[in-house]
Amino acid sequence: MTQKGDLLSFRPDIKVVDATIRDGGLVNDFYFSDEFIRELYKTNIKAGVDYMEFGYRADKEMFDVDKFGKWKFCDDQDIREIVGDNDTDLKISIMADVGRCNYKQDIHDKSDSPVDLIRIATYVNTMPAAIDMIEDAHQKGYETTCNIMAISNAKESDIKSALEMLGKSPVDGIYIVDSYGSLYPEQIRMISEQYLEVGERYGKYIGMHAHNNQQLAFANTIDACAQGVSYLDATMSGMGRGAGNCAMELLLGFLKNPRYKMFPVLKFVEKYIVPLKDAGVLWGYDIPYMITGQLNQHPRTAIAAEKEGRRDYSDFYKEFIDKD
Amino acid sequence: MTQKGDLLSFRPDIKVVDATIRDGGLVNDFYFSDEFIRELYKTNIKAGVDYMEFGYRADKEMFDVDKFGKWKFCDDQDIREIVGDNDTDLKISIMADVGRCNYKQDIHDKSDSPVDLIRIATYVNTMPAAIDMIEDAHQKGYETTCNIMAISNAKESDIKSALEMLGKSPVDGIYIVDSYGSLYPEQIRMISEQYLEVGERYGKYIGMHAHNNQQLAFANTIDACAQGVSYLDATMSGMGRGAGNCAMELLLGFLKNPRYKMFPVLKFVEKYIVPLKDAGVLWGYDIPYMITGQLNQHPRTAIAAEKEGRRDYSDFYKEFIDKD
Repeated sequence: MTQKGDLLSFRPDIKVVDATIRDGGLVNDFYFSDEFIRELYKTNIKAGVDYMEFGYRADKEMFDVDKFGKWKFCDDQDIREIVGDNDTDLKISIMADVGRCNYKQDIHDKSDSPVDLIRIATYVNTMPAAIDMIEDAHQKGYETTCNIMAISNAKESDIKSALEMLGKSPVDGIYIVDSYGSLYPEQIRMISEQYLEVGERYGKYIGMHAHNNQQLAFANTIDACAQGVSYLDATMSGMGRGAGNCAMELLLGFLKNPRYKMFPVLKFVEKYIVPLKDAGVLWGYDIPYMITGQLNQHPRTAIAAEKEGRRDYSDFYKEFIDKD
Repeated sequence: MTQKGDLLSFRPDIKVVDATIRDGGLVNDFYFSDEFIRELYKTNIKAGVDYMEFGYRADKEMFDVDKFGKWKFCDDQDIREIVGDNDTDLKISIMADVGRCNYKQDIHDKSDSPVDLIRIATYVNTMPAAIDMIEDAHQKGYETTCNIMAISNAKESDIKSALEMLGKSPVDGIYIVDSYGSLYPEQIRMISEQYLEVGERYGKYIGMHAHNNQQLAFANTIDACAQGVSYLDATMSGMGRGAGNCAMELLLGFLKNPRYKMFPVLKFVEKYIVPLKDAGVLWGYDIPYMITGQLNQHPRTAIAAEKEGRRDYSDFYKEFIDKD
């Protein structure tokens, strides 16, 4: 495995994607104030962030609009109210989940939308549906990525087939997603190599989306980066499901491209993230998340344990060991 | 760089060193209850930990014994009260700092002491004094390591000279110490290679002691391990100066040697570490530590900021940028 770049230079192919609203929305049901979203948008512009993801485009027939904030649905007009014509270098992204997005109807032509990038999230066993969504979005004029989730639980042979399908599709980028926060840096380096080989062969960029169950979100992100992965997801103070994600402030402190600025991010964190934490919005590393990460399991039981304020870590651990 | 071992097998050369009292003592002035120490000792035995470091052997003429708990001084008889004859597989370690230990007088013959390993901590510019301490401890019958601190601020040429001096000394092991938590995994891999080359040439093992300023303590520890570093420091829930250290529970979850057990560690953490945190003992990742880590500075200003409960991260950051 050869390393791309070194610690003093920077690679212009690297793009930073702020996923605060989208992954962070999973811990507060997308109830962000308009001020929060507007200031996050301004912060990302000042910080030189390349993409800002506004949320999911979830199907309103499947999900009750009264039970979630508007960024679970990300209507074009709601984004437009924040960004206007978005006459900036910051590109706008949304995520569309296989099976949870009525894409033929709800994703409009790019010419009618402020969105630049549509990220299709799928499990490895729903690739044909993902490819259909990619083709639809591509045809409508969008940049697209495919984010294959929960790969720590997928067979290598299935991932290989999925990558080949994506290689032949019109998708622009393919994401490594460590949904359970269970992958170690040496695995990330091997997986990066596999994805990059396909990416180079078919002309697709590769991205990294990490979770912090084992305090490895940042390490895995920069290790993937050192291998040649170029789209790097981060969220403000790591806000995201369960143990959260790679923190934007850690990532921007590492990257050497002078376009990235730390100061506006710290300003945003102290003014808008600290109050969320104070108000009891829960995310970030803790031992229950570590346990589900180590055991390569969905974090849902750990999330429940955190909500209950459980600190009987040994009993929590035993519940898994007894089940296996 | 070639990788030693893989994710399913285990390397019998790996030793886990619990530094909870020694590095954790820096955040509570070594005021641990005897019950805490006794239960930690029992926990380490049950968990299969290889070494337990009881603290520093600090010079009582330099440091007021009324201002610190007894583990700053680690008298042989105090250790003996906990461990008796230590008829176990767990080895006992203490740390002796260059310039802060009256070693000729206070380190007694191994035959009169429960201690197995003396770890000499030094900066790169006090190597001759460190060598003298190593020779003294070696002569008295102890296993020894040399822990060169703050290497992120040292010149490579000085580190190279120090390693050659240590190679020719009777020291048994040499430690990579990231005192400021500022080193990235790709640096740790290069430094590991450098230390391992000297270690192989002279027959010394290499150890890793990490700090968590950038949420990289665990990642750096297992990356060093993958390179061939074999002595791995960890502390319960990462208890240690500033952002703390590599957490024992993360490390034992990664290592595959069946001698290591997670359950007793989780039991100890919930019963003895959680109450310390609740009582306001401060350690663990936060943005001020990230900033001193990114800027490769001693964490003392970040520790002060945490004690004051500062969350004006952008002002804290500006204080460094203005100074530089």
